[in-house]
Parts: sequence; C-alpha cells; structure tokens
Amino acid sequence: MALLVEKTTSGREYKVKDMSQADFGRLEIELAEVEMPGLMACRTEFGPSQPFKGAKITGSLHMTIQTAVLIETLTALGAEVRWCSCNIFSTQDHAAAAIARDSAAVFAWKGETLQEYWWCTERALDWGPGGGPDLIVDDGGDATLLIHEGVKAEEEFAKNGTVPDPSSTDNVEFQLVLGIIKESLKVDPLRYTKMKERLVGVSEETTTGVKRLYQMQANGTLLFPAINVNDSVTKSKFDNLYGCRHSLPDGLMRATDVMIAGKVAFIAGYGDVGKGCAAAMKQAGARVIVSEIDPICALQATMEGLQVLPLEDVVSDVDIFVTTTGNKDIIMVDHMRKMKNNAIVCNIGHFDNEIDMHGLETFPGVKRITIKPQTDRWVFPDTNSGIIVLAEGRLMNLGCATGHPSFVMSCSFTNQVIAQLELWNEKSSGKYEKKVYVLPKHLDEKVAALHLGKLGAKLTKLTKEQADYISVPAEGPYKPAHYRY
Amino acid sequence: MALLVEKTTSGREYKVKDMSQADFGRLEIELAEVEMPGLMACRTEFGPSQPFKGAKITGSLHMTIQTAVLIETLTALGAEVRWCSCNIFSTQDHAAAAIARDSAAVFAWKGETLQEYWWCTERALDWGPGGGPDLIVDDGGDATLLIHEGVKAEEEFAKNGTVPDPSSTDNVEFQLVLGIIKESLKVDPLRYTKMKERLVGVSEETTTGVKRLYQMQANGTLLFPAINVNDSVTKSKFDNLYGCRHSLPDGLMRATDVMIAGKVAFIAGYGDVGKGCAAAMKQAGARVIVSEIDPICALQATMEGLQVLPLEDVVSDVDIFVTTTGNKDIIMVDHMRKMKNNAIVCNIGHFDNEIDMHGLETFPGVKRITIKPQTDRWVFPDTNSGIIVLAEGRLMNLGCATGHPSFVMSCSFTNQVIAQLELWNEKSSGKYEKKVYVLPKHLDEKVAALHLGKLGAKLTKLTKEQADYISVPAEGPYKPAHYRY
Amino acid sequence: MALLVEKTTSGREYKVKDMSQADFGRLEIELAEVEMPGLMACRTEFGPSQPFKGAKITGSLHMTIQTAVLIETLTALGAEVRWCSCNIFSTQDHAAAAIARDSAAVFAWKGETLQEYWWCTERALDWGPGGGPDLIVDDGGDATLLIHEGVKAEEEFAKNGTVPDPSSTDNVEFQLVLGIIKESLKVDPLRYTKMKERLVGVSEETTTGVKRLYQMQANGTLLFPAINVNDSVTKSKFDNLYGCRHSLPDGLMRATDVMIAGKVAFIAGYGDVGKGCAAAMKQAGARVIVSEIDPICALQATMEGLQVLPLEDVVSDVDIFVTTTGNKDIIMVDHMRKMKNNAIVCNIGHFDNEIDMHGLETFPGVKRITIKPQTDRWVFPDTNSGIIVLAEGRLMNLGCATGHPSFVMSCSFTNQVIAQLELWNEKSSGKYEKKVYVLPKHLDEKVAALHLGKLGAKLTKLTKEQADYISVPAEGPYKPAHYRY
Amino acid sequence: MALLVEKTTSGREYKVKDMSQADFGRLEIELAEVEMPGLMACRTEFGPSQPFKGAKITGSLHMTIQTAVLIETLTALGAEVRWCSCNIFSTQDHAAAAIARDSAAVFAWKGETLQEYWWCTERALDWGPGGGPDLIVDDGGDATLLIHEGVKAEEEFAKNGTVPDPSSTDNVEFQLVLGIIKESLKVDPLRYTKMKERLVGVSEETTTGVKRLYQMQANGTLLFPAINVNDSVTKSKFDNLYGCRHSLPDGLMRATDVMIAGKVAFIAGYGDVGKGCAAAMKQAGARVIVSEIDPICALQATMEGLQVLPLEDVVSDVDIFVTTTGNKDIIMVDHMRKMKNNAIVCNIGHFDNEIDMHGLETFPGVKRITIKPQTDRWVFPDTNSGIIVLAEGRLMNLGCATGHPSFVMSCSFTNQVIAQLELWNEKSSGKYEKKVYVLPKHLDEKVAALHLGKLGAKLTKLTKEQADYISVPAEGPYKPAHYRY
Repeated sequence: MALLVEKTTSGREYKVKDMSQADFGRLEIELAEVEMPGLMACRTEFGPSQPFKGAKITGSLHMTIQTAVLIETLTALGAEVRWCSCNIFSTQDHAAAAIARDSAAVFAWKGETLQEYWWCTERALDWGPGGGPDLIVDDGGDATLLIHEGVKAEEEFAKNGTVPDPSSTDNVEFQLVLGIIKESLKVDPLRYTKMKERLVGVSEETTTGVKRLYQMQANGTLLFPAINVNDSVTKSKFDNLYGCRHSLPDGLMRATDVMIAGKVAFIAGYGDVGKGCAAAMKQAGARVIVSEIDPICALQATMEGLQVLPLEDVVSDVDIFVTTTGNKDIIMVDHMRKMKNNAIVCNIGHFDNEIDMHGLETFPGVKRITIKPQTDRWVFPDTNSGIIVLAEGRLMNLGCATGHPSFVMSCSFTNQVIAQLELWNEKSSGKYEKKVYVLPKHLDEKVAALHLGKLGAKLTKLTKEQADYISVPAEGPYKPAHYRY
Repeated sequence: MALLVEKTTSGREYKVKDMSQADFGRLEIELAEVEMPGLMACRTEFGPSQPFKGAKITGSLHMTIQTAVLIETLTALGAEVRWCSCNIFSTQDHAAAAIARDSAAVFAWKGETLQEYWWCTERALDWGPGGGPDLIVDDGGDATLLIHEGVKAEEEFAKNGTVPDPSSTDNVEFQLVLGIIKESLKVDPLRYTKMKERLVGVSEETTTGVKRLYQMQANGTLLFPAINVNDSVTKSKFDNLYGCRHSLPDGLMRATDVMIAGKVAFIAGYGDVGKGCAAAMKQAGARVIVSEIDPICALQATMEGLQVLPLEDVVSDVDIFVTTTGNKDIIMVDHMRKMKNNAIVCNIGHFDNEIDMHGLETFPGVKRITIKPQTDRWVFPDTNSGIIVLAEGRLMNLGCATGHPSFVMSCSFTNQVIAQLELWNEKSSGKYEKKVYVLPKHLDEKVAALHLGKLGAKLTKLTKEQADYISVPAEGPYKPAHYRY
Repeated sequence: MALLVEKTTSGREYKVKDMSQADFGRLEIELAEVEMPGLMACRTEFGPSQPFKGAKITGSLHMTIQTAVLIETLTALGAEVRWCSCNIFSTQDHAAAAIARDSAAVFAWKGETLQEYWWCTERALDWGPGGGPDLIVDDGGDATLLIHEGVKAEEEFAKNGTVPDPSSTDNVEFQLVLGIIKESLKVDPLRYTKMKERLVGVSEETTTGVKRLYQMQANGTLLFPAINVNDSVTKSKFDNLYGCRHSLPDGLMRATDVMIAGKVAFIAGYGDVGKGCAAAMKQAGARVIVSEIDPICALQATMEGLQVLPLEDVVSDVDIFVTTTGNKDIIMVDHMRKMKNNAIVCNIGHFDNEIDMHGLETFPGVKRITIKPQTDRWVFPDTNSGIIVLAEGRLMNLGCATGHPSFVMSCSFTNQVIAQLELWNEKSSGKYEKKVYVLPKHLDEKVAALHLGKLGAKLTKLTKEQADYISVPAEGPYKPAHYRY
Repeated sequence: MALLVEKTTSGREYKVKDMSQADFGRLEIELAEVEMPGLMACRTEFGPSQPFKGAKITGSLHMTIQTAVLIETLTALGAEVRWCSCNIFSTQDHAAAAIARDSAAVFAWKGETLQEYWWCTERALDWGPGGGPDLIVDDGGDATLLIHEGVKAEEEFAKNGTVPDPSSTDNVEFQLVLGIIKESLKVDPLRYTKMKERLVGVSEETTTGVKRLYQMQANGTLLFPAINVNDSVTKSKFDNLYGCRHSLPDGLMRATDVMIAGKVAFIAGYGDVGKGCAAAMKQAGARVIVSEIDPICALQATMEGLQVLPLEDVVSDVDIFVTTTGNKDIIMVDHMRKMKNNAIVCNIGHFDNEIDMHGLETFPGVKRITIKPQTDRWVFPDTNSGIIVLAEGRLMNLGCATGHPSFVMSCSFTNQVIAQLELWNEKSSGKYEKKVYVLPKHLDEKVAALHLGKLGAKLTKLTKEQADYISVPAEGPYKPAHYRY
C-alpha cells in the first residue's frame, strides 16, 4: 500500500483500506450506539456545552466500530480528532472508512506492516505546523512512546548533535521508531519537544501502557500528566475480564471453527484477562489448566476448580494455548515442537512477544501454510506435525474476530471520555502534575451507573440512617479506595 | 446464477459458487480431518475392503467442511456420490468447491433461491438413465420428500392422467416441488417410480426429517427402509446439544458482535437443541428464560435455574430470542412489534416458519435494512423501532456461522456412514423392511468409543465378575434400549 | 435394642428409636408438605374417593421425612400401611416416630444391625393371619427378594422337605435372609406362598431393584406384576440426577466439613447419579475426574470438561472418591492403600459392595477411628496414613445427611402413588401380568406438571394448528417413548 | 448456665458446655490440621524459636474446630492464650472442650445469652492482676470495643465521678456492655486503662470490625495499633468469597433440608460475601436476584447473568432471602409479611440487625415455632402464613452449620498468625502507631503460597529477563498495591 495521505471532499486527511465500506461501517456504528449507553449518555450530558471546543485529540487505539462510537462522542463534545490503530491487525476497515468519511482523520487498516503502522502513528500525531495534539488517547503507549523517544533524541541532538542509530537495537520495531525520529530531526529538530509542550496529557487504556507510564513516573522521565484508565474498576474488571470471556471463544471459532468442548485449554496467566479466558473455556466445556507466577492468583484458580501447572508439565497434552500474561517469552519454539498436531497457539494479552514468533519463523525448515488471513499452520520439518498460530501471535480477539463487544467497551470508553474531559478541564488548574492518576471512585461508579438501565438493573437506595451506619454518603462513593470488587 | 451444470476436466458434474476456493476448502478439510476421528477411523477400518464399491449415494445435507469429510469417507469406501445442500444458506462455498473439484458431484452454494435449491436437489438425485441413487443421506427429508411426491404424482398420472397443480397450495416451496414433478412427468412419467425401485434406503439426519418418516411409516406410505440416525444417542445427545451450545453463540457473535453477558435470552423450546442453547447463553452471562409446552422439559429447565414462562409474558424484556422448537408460528410479527429496539430474533431449530417471516415481510410499511448478508434490521413504521433478524429466519448457526464444529459432526456422520453401510450390506437380506430403524446400541457405543482417544479419555474395563453382576457383556452394549443418558 | 414390637395406644404396632421425637418429626413433615406439591395434589385429587380403601400396603423404603409425606398420602387415600427402611442408616428417627404415632406401623431406626434390618423387613410384611400385604412399595427390592426367596424355599420344602441352609453362602446378609425363612418354615410352611397369592403387585423405586426385577422377568421367576417407577422420567432424570447433585455435597459437608473447592474429586460412573455428583463437585470448585465403562457416557463427561480416566491412573491424586456405579468392587482396599492421607471415600450409588469394605475391615493391622457416627478414619499400619470412609460404605447421602430434599422426592413419590393406584385399580382387570411395566408418558408428564406451579413456571400452550403440525395431542403426551430428555 | 469459672487439673480456667466432648473435638482438630497447611507451616517455621514466648493473647473469635487449630498454632509458637467466641451461636462445643482441656483458657458455648456472651468476653480479657493481654485477635471488634468503652468510662469517672448508665441506651447489647464496665469501675477504676497500656495491638478478622477501627482512626480515638487482616487478599477474596460459597448452602441444607434447585434466591449485597452466596445459589440450580446500592457491584452481577432489583420489587416471588450487606435494616418485618409461606430468611453478613428481628419478635400476634435450634418458623396472625428464620437472624453458616471449612480458614488464620507475630516482634520498634495497617503484599503472597502444595498446584517461575521486563522481583511481590485480583 503506497503511503500517501488522501483527503475527503471536505479536505480532511485519511488513509484507509476501502472507502466504499463506509456505509456498512455506518450501519454497524448505529447498532453499536444502542449497545454503548455510557458514551451516548456523555453525548446527552456534555454535548450541548461543547467542552472539547478547540481541543485537538490524537488517538492510538484499535480502530474498531466501538472506537468509532468513542471518536464520534469526542467530536460530539467539540473535539477535533486524528486517529490510528495500536495494532496492525485490529482495524475494522468499515469502521475506519465511516469515520474517515464522516468524522475524523483516520490512518488505519487491517493488516498493516510494522512500517505502515508507525507511519500511521506519526500521521495521527501530526497536526501540522501548530504542533501536536492537546490530548492523547493511548492504548499500549505507542503514541506516548514516540513522543518520549522523540524528545529524548532531540535533547541529545541539541546537546551534541547525536542522531539516533536504528542499527543500535535488534528489536525490529524499535528500529522503525528510531528511523522515524531520525528523519524527523532532519525536518524539525524540535518537533517532539514542541509536541510535548503543547500536550495537556494522555489517558492510557491498557495494562501494558500503564506499566510503561508508572516506570517513567518512577524514573522521573514522564513528560506530561497521565490518567490510568485501565485501573478504573469499570475498565479492568469489565473490559479485561468480561470482554475477553466473550472475545476469546469468538476469535477461536472464527479462526478455526474448532470444537472447544472436550479439549484441554492452557491459559498462561490468571489476571483479569486470564480469568476471563479461563472462564470462557471452562464454560464452553474445555478442561482448563492455568499457569501462574503469583501464588495468590494461582490459589484463586484452584478455588475455581482449575489445575495450576507450569507449561512444561503439560505441553504435549494441551489442545489450545492462550497467553494472557503481559510478559514475554511465555511459549517458546521449543514448547511448540512438543505440542500435539494442530494445537492452537494464540495470544490475547499483550504484544506478539508472549509467543516466540521470532523463534518459530526462523526455525530451520519450518513451513508456514496460511489457511486464511490470521490463521496459519506451521509445520515442523522433523515431525511433520503442525501447530496453528492465530493473528501471527498478536491479539487474537482483534486479529481473528472483532475485539470486545460494544457494551463492555462502552464502560472502558466512557472512562476515556471522562478522563479526557478531566485533563482538558483542569489544563490550567495545575491539578495534574507529570504523574499517573486514577479517576476518582465517584466517576468510576458513575460509569457503572450509566450502564445499568440498558440491562434492566435497578439499584437499591440507602436510607440516611443506613448511610450513616456504614459511614458513606447515601449517593456514594460507597467503597474505600483499596476495595477490590 | 444461471442454472447450468458444469463439468470438471474429468467429466464430473457440478454447480458451485467459485471453483477458485477449492484450495482454501482443501486446507480446511485437512484441518477438519484431525478433528473427526470417527470418520477417519471408518476409512482405516473399512477403506481397504471397499464396501461401497458400485454404490451410488445421493446426499442432501448442508454442504460444509464437515460434510466434505463425510463425503470423502463415503468415496474412500468405494461409493460414487452426488450432493446438494438441505438449506439455502448453509453451504460453505470453499467446501463445495474442493469436493466438486476432487471427489463428488456437488450442486450447492451459499444463498440459493428456493428455486435454485430444488434444482440442486433434483440434480443430486439425477444419476442419469440408469435411475436414481442406491442410497440417500438425507437431512430434513427433502430428497425423500421429492421422491415420495414424485411417485405419488406418477401413480395419479398413470391412473387418470392428472398432473400436479402448483397453484393448489399456497406454500411457496411446495409449489416449486410440484412444478418440478410436473415437468418431470413430461420427460419421463416413471422417473421417480424407477428411482424408488432402485433405492436401498435412506439414512435421515435430523429430528424434523425423522418425524416425517415416522408419519409415513404410520400412514403406510413409506416407500423404502429408513435408518433414523438422529436418535442415535451419539447424534441427538451430542450434535443437537453440544453442537448448538457451540454454534449459537458463534452465530450471534459473527452476525451481531453483541455482548451476551448481561442480556436476557429467551429460548423457545427445551429439547436437546434448546438445552444446548440455554446452556450457552447462561454460561456466557445472559439471564435465560425458557418456554416449553412439555411439563417434563419445563421442570428440567427449572432445575437448572432457568425461568420458564410463555413468550407473551416477557416479550418486551428480552434482548435475544432463539427458537428451537421444531414447530411453527413460535414468534409472530405481533410479538416482534412489542420487542425492544434492536432485539435479536433467530432460529436454530427447524425451518424458517418458527419465526413468522411471512408476517414480518408483509407487514405494512416495514423497512428492511441489510447490515450484512444474513443480518437484517427490520424497522416498524409506527414505532421506528427495529429488530435484528438472522439468516432470514433460517438456521442461524449455518447461515451466520459455519454450523456445528467438526468434532461433534464426526459423531453424527460416523453414524451416517455406519447406517449407510448397514443398509447397503443388508440390501438383499430382507433385514430392513419399509420401516424406520434405529442403529443398535453396540454401534452407537462404537461411535462414541472412536471419539474418546482424541480427547485423552480412557475407559475403565469391566471384570468378568462385574459384568456378570450387572448382567451385561463385558464389552457392551452396556445399557437397555430405554436408557436415557 | 431388644427386638420387641411395641404398640401405640390405639394398638398399632411399631418399633422406633425414640417416640419422644414425634413432635419434631411432625413439624418437619409439615414443612416438607409445602415442598411436595405432587403428593399434596394427589391428596386433593384422590383423597375424597378413598381409592385405597381396604388396601394393605407394605413399604420398604428409607424412613425419612419425605417418605412420611408419602405414607400419609397413601393413608389419606384410604390405605393401611406398614413400613420399614431399606437401608440400615437411612432412617430419620423423628420421622419414624411421627409416623408410628400418627399414621402407620413403622419398624425402622437409624443404625440398625443387619439382623435388625431383616427383622424390620419381616415385621413390615407381616399383616397377621390374613396373609401379607396387597401392595408393596419397594426400594432396592429387599421386600420383593424376601418373598421370592421364601416362596422358593417353601416350594423346595414342599417338594422334598429341604430347609434353607444359611451356611451355604458366605454373603453375610443372605445368610440372614435364609435364616429368617428357615424359621418361618417352622411356623408356617406356606407363609410366603400365601403372601405372593394375595399380592397385587410391587412398585419399585430404584435402579438396582429394577435390575433385579428385569432379571426375574427374563428368568420367568417374577411372581407378581411390577411397576418400574425408577424409569419414569420424572424419577430417574430428577431424583437420581438433581437429588444427588444436592445431597452429595450435603453429606460431605455434614460428615467432614471439608472444603470442596480446590480438591480433586473422582466420580466412578457417569449415569444419572454420577452426572449429578460430578455437576455438584464441579460447581463447588473441585476438579472432577470421572471413570466410565460406557463410551457414550464417557463422551458426555468429556463434553462437560471432565477428565475420564480409570481409577488406577489417578488414585494417589484424588481427595474425594465417590462411587455411583451400581456395580461391585469399584474401590478395593489396594486402591485405598495408595490414597492420600485423609482422602474421603464414599458411595452414593448402590450397596456397600461398591467399596471393598470387607477388604478394608479385614486388612491386617488396620485401625478404625470413629470420628462420629458414619464418619470413620481407617489407618493403615504400614504407612500410618488414613482414609475417611463415610456411612460404612453405604449410601452416604442418607447415612451422613438426610437424603434427597423434599421437592425432588415429591416427583419420585408422586410416581409411586400413581403406580400403586394403577396396580390397585387394575387388580382384577388382568391389565398387568407378571411383568415389569413403566408408567405411561401422560402420567409422567402429569407428575411434572404438578410440580411447576410451586416454582413459578408457566407452560406454553400448543394451538390446534401447532399440535397438528407436530402430530401430538395439544394436551400431550408430547414425546415418543424413546425420547431421552 | 451458672456463670462460674471452672479449672482444669492443671489449673487453667475455662467455661464450656461439655468437657466430655474433648476427645471428639481432638479427633476433628486432627482432621482439620491436614486441611490447614498454612497454620501447620507456621508451626514448622516458627515453632522452634518460640517467638511468642511471654506473650499473652486474648482471642474473641468463633470458637470452632478451625479456631482451635489457630489457637494451638499460637501456643505452639510460645503464647499463652485465653479465648471467647464473638457470636452467641458459633461455638462448636467439642472444639471448645478440646482446647479447654489441652491448650488454652476457653469461655464459650453454643447458644449463649447476650449476658453470658459478654461475661465470656470479659473472662477472656481478664489475665488477672498483671493487667490484660499483650495482643488481641478480634473478630467484629467486641473485645476492642469493650476496652475502648472501658477506658472512656474510666476517664469520665476519673474526671467527674460519672458512672455509665445502662438505661441511657435502648440497644440491649450496649446496655450489657455499660453494665459490665459499671461493675468493673467499682472493683478497679483503672482496669481498662491498665489493659490498654499493656496492649501491643490487635489484629482484626472481619469487615465489620475493620470498619469500626477505621472510624476510630479517623476520629483519633484508636488506643493501640491494629492490623486489618480482613483486607489481606488471601483473607477477603478467599474466606469471604469461597468460604461463604461453601457455607451458605451448608447452613441452608442442615437447617431446612430444602431443595435449592428451582428456587428463587435473593441475595442482598454483592460484595465478596454476596458474590460467594450468589455463586453458590446459582450453581445449585436456583435463580438468583441480587440487590445492590453500588452501581459497580451491580454491574458485576449483571455480567454473571444475575438480575439486579430492589427487595421491594420481588419480595413475594422469592423462596430464600440472604443478607450479606454489613448494613442494617435490610429485611424488615413489613417485607416478611409479604413473603411466600415458608420463605427462608437468613443473614450471613454481619449482625442480626440486617434482618429486623426486633420488628418480627414484637409483631402483634406473631407466633414462633421452633423446628429445631436455630430454625424457627414465625407465623403471622393475619395470613396464617409463616416464614423460616435461621439462627435468629445471626450468622447462619455458624449458627446452622459449622462455618467456613478448614482450608479457607487456614488462609485467614495464617494471616492472623503473621499479623500477631508482626505486632509482637515490632512491639518496641515503633513501627506501628495507633493506626490501622494492612499486611505487606509479600506476606499476603506467602500465605497463598503455603496453601498451593496441598492442592497439587505448581507455580511457574519468572526468569530474570522476564522479571526485569515487567519490573518485579523474580520472587515477588508481583503486583502493585492497588491490584484488585
């Protein structure tokens, strides 16, 4: 795909796969709106006052139908938006087309190369001469990373003229990042510095991105305020858990049509994502084995009747392997060689380094047979036995299915909208320093409350006496910060 | 699509959507073979002796990847095969292409019109001058129906020259059947009579077809022996139950991406199919309401914590409606008008008359918005509220997803192979009269046994003393005929 | 306990543990009545016409609170009743006391010796000079056995004066049976013969008893008509399945207070009882392993995510062993020696020979430590490791808890009442020969229907058109005889 | 029961129901030890060094078999112990007897009056002339309360001679507390002041007690350091959740034998306790309705397929009511009057004021029928309809069954031992101020780790590279403080 920016008739930039899918995208967006009561309530509550008037928002987050409803909520509140995906396989092309046509500048398509991916990220951050965005919606932290690396390089360059050297790393993706910055230095040696200065803050969607932010906070290198949306209860205990409970089997079914009942499923990691995955597999009739490093999570797994064993102990008995750890090197090529013929290997947790894709791809004599996009059978030469890898080791629910369903994403994205509003409203108040913040409990509870009506749930009200008895306001917040739900 | 038969280079007839998908179909067939141990065991056990040498088999059964493995098992055992689908939406075009190219005469594509459907059925039955097939694999009984109606018409015609009158019925589909027979009478007034005379028997796949057979047996109109495969335990208690438990959520997810958790699901009917559907919805986090006419099934539902209420009592509270009854007129257009906006309505049980599609289509002012194939939003003019109907009211798991997964279909289809073998081997023995038979228990147990190894299950062996104590042979069969599992 | 019959002030015979518990029993009987809608409906429907007027009914069935409601339903319909328990541990003494005081002749207490047990059985069958009962309610077939063995002995005696020799068998229990008959021959050499002649028939409650009846039918030795209540759907698919799902954890908790979550449970047998047990253990958070001889049941287990392996493969990994097979020699003393310390071993299926109690009791140096009644720790001398055996290997739900709950027993016992009515009403019609019969489907459906209202379930009604379409009467029965539910 | 202290032959004080049950208690304690690996590991690890040498520990915590193992762990580590129960119904008399005979001073029996209860509490705190205990293990905070109220009264008395006036409150229980203090002032006007001065700290077991502590901390009235054991993950996410999942059905079954399947269960509150209760009822086949004030918890309930509605909306449809809120006035007598006949009402959350026992007891004309201890049927005069109240509205799992099982209590109590060790070891370091503390994450993880082996679970080890990649020590702790599990 030639990396040329296109423009709508109204002059808005975009680069998507197929603009003719915009109508289809619009129909699905309309269906999704009915399933996303939190976002629609934000439009109703905040739309009239246009709080984002003048705000430029860059998003780096899976360009799906659900994200489309998020984007159009941001624009409905007055923002101008540029968007890219945070994963090379996660874009739904009809969603991208509809948004590109109707609402925001989009640079995203399903099946980007890594080079295309970083080109898209750069496009989304490029608001023209006036500098970068005011706000960032990030997922996994790539937009944030690019700015931080850019600023670092510009500082080095200012100091001593050093230019980043892509060959200094053997991480292919980081080579691309350094390449982009190197090019940028030639054009404007203060590009990222100006960007950072303009930036009000970022709201980060997911565990991995949040971890990066806390590390930067700890190192004192964080360049702007950040709101950790991931750790809103209505995000991590819903999207991560119930979203994956839904989308793991969805991805497995669409990619392989395999019967889950009767199979042995191995879930690496029993955090929120792993809990959702294990529940899904168990409910579908699989026997589930979990691996864990954390004894508390391991003990939780046992209480649900799951077996807890290291991968090594069971690798040749398992039919379906799922990584959810947020760590690297979980399933190595040596494990894969010991697996049953046609064992399914996939990742729903993090980057494609949970699975040793590099080791697999470079294994001598290995043969890759693409059944269909995102579904590959890899055959080892010695055994002639194959394994099926989904989405090339990347997030299989986004690569092989359509990600999490609208309703649970409405919880997550309502947190995003509220976080963006908070950053924007407080941009001059000094409330937020260059630190990582979590949204206050009452906003978290508000997000939940906005989603109950759609499901027919009715809350019980505390009387004044009861509220006093347990020492909480009758209207909430109801729980101490450390409450675990 | 012009209804012209095409031919492979080897001269075999076919009519499929796109022959270029044959390679893709072949890859998926190879994956499915690993998941269908019963069929592969049949090839190993019976292949060398070529028991179907000389047998012509016509199949009318969803032309999916799994069926492809069935067809190639029949040909591996020596049969010559012609095939059509038994549902206008259920064909997987890549499966059809691979089989048409490599193994058998196929007349099937996804999205046939009713007229095309019956044309395909007729083609599959047409073995040229020598008469029809020796054996039929039927699903729903349409091939059997066509022969019975044909013979009836030929008898009438012979008696008094009467020709069937399509306008004598207001059932659109039956009009087409009568039209075909009417044309056939012009060409050969003994065509179906000769076909019936040649026919050794039929093995029938599903509840609805079996019901038709028992009615014909009761009326004394059954023209050839029939084996009821549906009521093998390894069929009805597996395919119907566990197959639907898998494929209902699969179809819902692919068609609508809707979050099932938190929703209210209504399952009409709590037979094997309904039990599978209710289990799937409950496990996915929905609240499930069941309707039943049979107090025993209703009481079973209550024991699983399900609410049992008539549709009328809950129609406006439900998010997802699923019909599984095998009966007609379950969800009428008047129900649909009272549903929530974007309620999902689908059928996994039987024909498209479980849902009042006719009433919906002809409702004054109703508007149909096709989101994507098999997913339509129907908007009522008065309320401007819409419902989402899947697969035009036909089997949603086959229309919106890929039907049941290979493993459970291996159970069903191994029964089919065994039934076909039984009919063929006993064709001259007089063992089977013009009646409906169920396979003997020991064959049912054999089918199950062939599927255990793949799942790592190991049986316990009875000692001689134990076998005597409970008065069964140590090697089975283990249960009396009336045992319910 | 001295085996002396006592009499109420009204002259009715009884032998119970403690008459002072009658008030407590009465209170619990009143609670149970609310939970047993089927039995109460029988009283309402049939009570006024007193159909059992003149009928003498002997019951041999666990003398629990639920059975008390059954007995008082029989008496409310006009019968005179004598009762014993069919298990030495299953009597609830307060239930026995209340019935003895208020309604029927009872001979039963918790913790009978085997000798006492057979004395009670004999007492229940002894209606004085006029011969035995008109009808028998049997559970496990002991009352039926005693009559059959008695008649056999009397025929031998008449033929050649032979008297049964208890020492001819090494089955301790059968020695007692022969002893009783031997004594009886001295008093009245035609006692059982006269009993059999008077007997209208028996209705049998459970799988084991039914198996005996079918064997006698097959051998041509059955002496009177029998109705197989066990195989009513509303019995075997409810009591056996949902009853055990309830009462297995109940018995485990009361006997051992052990946490089920996290444990490995082994269920021998996956019939209706095994299915209920496995479901209960899985739901409580145990990991469940099933053993099976029947490949169909084994395949069902795999579809529910259960591991299927022989006992030998897992004996040292399991925490809780449960036998449900209806067969003998399932868990042998050599297995027990390999078990974990404090592994729990129990039987919910059948007689105490599922577990090798004899081998355990006679193992050299084994030490029995009674924690509390029905809960023994057995310590092996070599390992100093112990296992915990419940209810001495007999039915643990009745020995360690209170058996199945009232509601599900109402289903079973309503079948009993209907079966007894059927036998009695047809006593002179010749409808029932000396064979085993199952109740017709419409009565089975009626039993279910009587239990729906209590649970708030409402049936859907078939229209005339729908009923015709599926060829059933609108008011049922709805299913063919072979339907498996 | 005359309130006289008795003495063992060795001179240790006690007051229990029946010393002859000590052997039975000892047998069950030995069984429990096998199920409590965390406590046994503490004995192994810390026993040899006798860290509690010289420490006097008072416990106010349900005197059960599990607590017996806790007490004997404390004594095995060198402590001297006095104990009372924290609930009038929760003592297991055989456990109390065994401990009283063998290990510690116990003042507790099942079925204390409130007056007896507070006498026991006072006895447990009375270490003779040398002042009170060094450490307190508290559950619900009654021991802590008595000291705080005592000190407050002694300060008042010192200031102006005021003596507390029991009639100043209409809370019956608080009247007793004031009465005890009033009497104490006569004997020693500095008794509680001296007690507080000696006290190193308290470790508190449960939500309600912790809430009191945080309130005192907020008010600045907390008199000594406190460790909040409840909010260890290995306590609140295990004992509260999995403990109740086990013990709610246990209590229901023992108290009422009612079939749970098919019933409608109402769970007030969906915190950890409510989640466990709802899961248990759902798994047992009930239909579950939840009430919540907190929208987040409510949304969690919907994701599990539970209906969320206020009590008022469903009060007449429910069969089993369970309160788990930790609040008061949840089920009022006016609700009870609208319930179905024989609806079951119980509390597993907190004090007996979740249920309006006062309103029930004083309802004009209401009739109480005691079925058996802790199981009462209350009949309203107007409707003649009754409800069944368990454990007089107090904790039903302890009143009607034996509380939580050993394994999960081992998690909780290992936290207690570690907390007590921490307080004692740091008694002079100043580490703990008069505040409420939670145990550090690594100790929480240690508690979990100690319980994995018993269940056969094996942890996966992080490599150095992986640990670095996610920035945690390879040996833990693995999670940030705010992680919710």
